[in-house]
Amino acid sequence: MQTELSEQLGVEHALFGFTPFPAVAAAISRAGGFGVLGAVRYTAPDDLKRDLDWVEAHVDGRPYGLDVVMPAKKVEGVTEAEVEAMIPAGHRQFVKDTLARYGVPELADGEASGWRITGWMEQVARSQLDVAFDYPIKLLANALGSPPADVVGRAHERGLLVAALAGSARHARKHREAGIDIVVAQGYEAGGHTGEIGSMVLTPEVVDAVAPLPVLAAGGIGSGQQVAAALALGAQGVWLGSIWLTTTEAELPSRALVRKLLSAGSGDTVRSRALTGKPARQLRTEWTDAWDGPGGPGTLPMPLQGLLVADAITRIQRYEVEPLLGTPVGQIVGRMNEERSVQAVVDDLTRGFERAVDRINRIAGRSRQ
Amino acid sequence: MQTELSEQLGVEHALFGFTPFPAVAAAISRAGGFGVLGAVRYTAPDDLKRDLDWVEAHVDGRPYGLDVVMPAKKVEGVTEAEVEAMIPAGHRQFVKDTLARYGVPELADGEASGWRITGWMEQVARSQLDVAFDYPIKLLANALGSPPADVVGRAHERGLLVAALAGSARHARKHREAGIDIVVAQGYEAGGHTGEIGSMVLTPEVVDAVAPLPVLAAGGIGSGQQVAAALALGAQGVWLGSIWLTTTEAELPSRALVRKLLSAGSGDTVRSRALTGKPARQLRTEWTDAWDGPGGPGTLPMPLQGLLVADAITRIQRYEVEPLLGTPVGQIVGRMNEERSVQAVVDDLTRGFERAVDRINRIAGRSRQ
Repeated sequence: MQTELSEQLGVEHALFGFTPFPAVAAAISRAGGFGVLGAVRYTAPDDLKRDLDWVEAHVDGRPYGLDVVMPAKKVEGVTEAEVEAMIPAGHRQFVKDTLARYGVPELADGEASGWRITGWMEQVARSQLDVAFDYPIKLLANALGSPPADVVGRAHERGLLVAALAGSARHARKHREAGIDIVVAQGYEAGGHTGEIGSMVLTPEVVDAVAPLPVLAAGGIGSGQQVAAALALGAQGVWLGSIWLTTTEAELPSRALVRKLLSAGSGDTVRSRALTGKPARQLRTEWTDAWDGPGGPGTLPMPLQGLLVADAITRIQRYEVEPLLGTPVGQIVGRMNEERSVQAVVDDLTRGFERAVDRINRIAGRSRQ
Repeated sequence: MQTELSEQLGVEHALFGFTPFPAVAAAISRAGGFGVLGAVRYTAPDDLKRDLDWVEAHVDGRPYGLDVVMPAKKVEGVTEAEVEAMIPAGHRQFVKDTLARYGVPELADGEASGWRITGWMEQVARSQLDVAFDYPIKLLANALGSPPADVVGRAHERGLLVAALAGSARHARKHREAGIDIVVAQGYEAGGHTGEIGSMVLTPEVVDAVAPLPVLAAGGIGSGQQVAAALALGAQGVWLGSIWLTTTEAELPSRALVRKLLSAGSGDTVRSRALTGKPARQLRTEWTDAWDGPGGPGTLPMPLQGLLVADAITRIQRYEVEPLLGTPVGQIVGRMNEERSVQAVVDDLTRGFERAVDRINRIAGRSRQ
């Protein structure tokens, strides 16, 4: 499964795997795909350094990349405390009441929230980059618009390709103007932040909008048939995130969450602002229902919403409060029905791709060579 | 582009085209696809008879089908007047006020609404079938659940295949249990009534759910690449509706509406209950915004909403009140940028399909034979 882009990056399959887990990222690259480690949870540079060292030691010399969350617009000199102060008391009370209704225990003293707003702030993303640029990463992706021009410049100086996610042709064109090398077309079906255009429509639209830049298709891809469909739509590869969550190498914070993912159907996700303030697809839970229902106070804009709920999410995960327990995940969660190794997932994708190509050739009246 | 289903129906391409316009349906079949005439607007059996005669005379002996809107559950002995009486006065006032705000003139005396609730009622659909079964139609499709068992039986006695639309694997399984022959998997991107699962995810899920029944993919398909993608996902053909709206053979009620369709982007549609009471994708307009915004009274359940707005929609179309003017259409409206003949659309689909197959073979390392 070779495209110009996969050849340029020196990988066997045009499969790009985004994951917050170093063991998954390394396993994707070892299996012939391109592993991309999500950096958003590394608020301490030393933690990122430790995990990049681990990836380096376990990637068998194969290429890999890093994904940061960096806003193009700088927020100058605002502290986390100042941002905290912008959260209305009624919203804090709603979080408190909702957690109390489900009997969610408090965190012990000093038990840090796993998901901090700081990971979204530019200075943190920059400190992550200062670490990452010391490693031989081949690709830098940004999940939140185009990265700032100086970051694109630094990446290019080091020979990295820069990728950015887009949910519309308009966003994709902005990325091209910002000097981005690869656009990830993130369809409505995808986990995490998504727009409203389905992958079937978005992928070719973005391909046309930014040609000749390569496009990776994201959203709704978890089988070899879906890989074939995305490549037929003009993508130069696929970008998969959700499918790795239930691999044996993944380190989800809770077994109950793994069980929820394995049993969820494609209709069990929701695009909700409850997690970050922007629409992000995630498991539908009584937590998202509380926010999105008529009794909710309405969500706050990014980054306030994420800051408001960070500790609540940690408590829900820590104590495995099942009705409230969720995670960003795409509609392909309906296919994630067993725990498999990363290698088994990649084998399934590549074999399924070959079968889909056989099928399409039969339909086109071309026999297999 | 041949699948078992297209061979069974004796058509050259596995392209199924749904349309309310006889000239479009006949042209699709003449071009080697399978035209399906939508019957919902025919409240008078003689009108349907006239148009089926026309199709028969213009289809050059090629096969074609009919699409009805028939609820599986019977509503016994309810008259339109009784249904009318269920509509709250506040909702009628909202319609009146909204039309007044835009200065939409009244219809002249006796100027009938083009879109009547009666078309949705079972007795009307049955009278349509009494007419249609005298014609050599090859396929009967139902847009609203499985048709009643006796209708499926009558169709099968006459050698027709019966198709039904489904927005989820659960609905698709119900169709199989009801003896349906073909499931149309209607993805989130589609125009008209849709569920929330994108075509990329829904198509293979429905294929797996009802195998070995054939599945047609609907939603997000308007180019040959998208046809190839749908077939790679396991569909035995594609079901296209929106793309025909801007063909030269189509007879939309308003030139202003044609212009709106030609200029709309993929992000200019909305899934709204404003038209029928169930979520249906359509052009986003100030009319849908009025219903879906905070100032709206909330939509009524089917069939009340459709009955409530029928005359309003006719007035908006009749007087071409542009800000309010809309139509059901899918996200591929972003690709509908010029008026073309049905033949030109079919040629574009089949050539684009061949190019997509070439591309996927190159990626798979299989050269073209």
